[in-house]
Amino acid sequence: MSESYRAAGVDLEAADRAKDRLKELVASTRDANTLSELGAFGGLYAVPDDVEAPVLVSSADGVGTKLKVAFMTGRHDTVGQDLVNHCVNDILVQGARPIFFLDYLATGAMDESVVTDVVTGVALACRENGCALLGGETAQMPDFYEDDEYDLAGFIVGVTPRAGIVDGSRIEAGDALIGLRSSGLHTNGYTLARRIVFETMGLGVDDPFPGLDRTAGEVLLDVHRSYLNQTMPLIEAGQLRGLVHNTGGGLPGNLPRILPDGLGAVVERSSWEPGTLFDVLQREGGVGRDEMYRVFNMGAGMILVVGPDEVDGVMEHLRDAGESPWLIGEIEAVDGDDPRVRYAD
Amino acid sequence: MSESYRAAGVDLEAADRAKDRLKELVASTRDANTLSELGAFGGLYAVPDDVEAPVLVSSADGVGTKLKVAFMTGRHDTVGQDLVNHCVNDILVQGARPIFFLDYLATGAMDESVVTDVVTGVALACRENGCALLGGETAQMPDFYEDDEYDLAGFIVGVTPRAGIVDGSRIEAGDALIGLRSSGLHTNGYTLARRIVFETMGLGVDDPFPGLDRTAGEVLLDVHRSYLNQTMPLIEAGQLRGLVHNTGGGLPGNLPRILPDGLGAVVERSSWEPGTLFDVLQREGGVGRDEMYRVFNMGAGMILVVGPDEVDGVMEHLRDAGESPWLIGEIEAVDGDDPRVRYAD
Repeated sequence: MSESYRAAGVDLEAADRAKDRLKELVASTRDANTLSELGAFGGLYAVPDDVEAPVLVSSADGVGTKLKVAFMTGRHDTVGQDLVNHCVNDILVQGARPIFFLDYLATGAMDESVVTDVVTGVALACRENGCALLGGETAQMPDFYEDDEYDLAGFIVGVTPRAGIVDGSRIEAGDALIGLRSSGLHTNGYTLARRIVFETMGLGVDDPFPGLDRTAGEVLLDVHRSYLNQTMPLIEAGQLRGLVHNTGGGLPGNLPRILPDGLGAVVERSSWEPGTLFDVLQREGGVGRDEMYRVFNMGAGMILVVGPDEVDGVMEHLRDAGESPWLIGEIEAVDGDDPRVRYAD
Repeated sequence: MSESYRAAGVDLEAADRAKDRLKELVASTRDANTLSELGAFGGLYAVPDDVEAPVLVSSADGVGTKLKVAFMTGRHDTVGQDLVNHCVNDILVQGARPIFFLDYLATGAMDESVVTDVVTGVALACRENGCALLGGETAQMPDFYEDDEYDLAGFIVGVTPRAGIVDGSRIEAGDALIGLRSSGLHTNGYTLARRIVFETMGLGVDDPFPGLDRTAGEVLLDVHRSYLNQTMPLIEAGQLRGLVHNTGGGLPGNLPRILPDGLGAVVERSSWEPGTLFDVLQREGGVGRDEMYRVFNMGAGMILVVGPDEVDGVMEHLRDAGESPWLIGEIEAVDGDDPRVRYAD
């Protein structure tokens, strides 16, 4: 009965019980290419046979200290959605649709209901993104994590035909930058945001957030959006020359990741409203404007780079898909010493 | 220059500097199918075109509290090897050879030399296993991890022709179990082992380990072995009916994962010597014999299930590959209520 091991803080039987409940969640995400069930050493997934010269696109990410907000509120069914959607966006920007996902959940003590809530969120977002939850690891690490804390990371694999890879190489001076709204902080800047909200402003998670009709906890837990469904048709139609997932490092950190040598981006920050959340963080935190744009997504979670002739069609498609896209700037030629991203205002 | 964010504990520039040094390590693992460089949002890897009906096999894992030993010794270049080799074994047992790997490294404060050491180990093991380090995430999470601590998880993708999947379905009563030696605890049982070694026995990491000519730190950091190179030829020749990676849960937890209904395993524990490390842990920790076999690998890190006619050939191949394989038991028919794994002694 593993007496010594349990005394040392590891409960193998609680882990087994949680595993049974996770099996159903995993099963809810299966598709025709999923060849394994949870419990196998590795998850099996057949390479889709309708993709020409298939290229796998893979990314790893974590939720970061947004998890602390989940701990403070006791709400654990959203962070898994954050994680999956973040990973989906990271491979979407290279033209890939997701095929499978695995999670890594490390806890101090195995609380079955917390583990189940976390994986419920993971499985929900997997279903929404048409992606199989192929497996994962739930690790009990006492004296490493606090009993009621955990870390959560994820790994995604997607596929694209080789000819469909989006890598920014077609970007030219004069291309337009189109921004799509974020749903809040997504998963970046939480170390600073928590300090401002919970320390400088002294709010609790149940206090109303200034200017918004919701609590601070709700606002800070807003789920990271996936841009898969509204963007993939544009990718498949070849209408996008580049996509940028606006995460840690903000616009100046992320736009250069796809820009060919000799090109930069000029961004007109007055062309969209970041929104109340960012306004409050900037004002209450006394954060400089440029730093706001380096730490936070400032309301623009995904940036599309579009040739001038395609702008109208792309904007129309996005509006039809329920977006309110903004034209936020354009691509320009730069010299070697120029910044790759500059602000027009 | 990110003053507020740095004051909040996140140093984006240190992260950028570490990234430059990681690029070389990543480049050292590239192969002809690797289509991306570090810095892209997702890593790109072409599906090998010489595999018939390719099936991807994927697994996620962590190093667990073996990391605490790395923290105690200040040696950080082995845990990455543990992680990769563990993941390699987890997909090897289903017949897959690894194609790419991603890591997740979360730290309290970004120490570039520690991050570089960790990834040096990851990259070394990736090269040894013929696997591209396709990307990863290095997350700074202050007030989550101690400044000098980190968690490390990994995610592997391998490939097998669909006809080459090993899933245990060919296993029959009378098949032999062959054990391959482990290199110590691998990555399991560290919560209990650390308690016994550092608390009950009161050893420091630099103290000699009883009966061994090495320090406690060295013994506990021994690198998890990969069984890829000695085992893959047997898999490709169709000589293995099943493989079991003997990790958390030990033989009783892992053997049943591949056994068809109605079959069990009988293990003769006196057929091999676990070795001094396990003898000392059992004696000094006052741990029951059955629990030892449930928590630790007890010297047998990989178990092969082999049809009776193939045993001699498999043993010879393994000896030629430098192994000292043991015949440790066999497969038998069991009724519904019988344990799936029983000990003959």
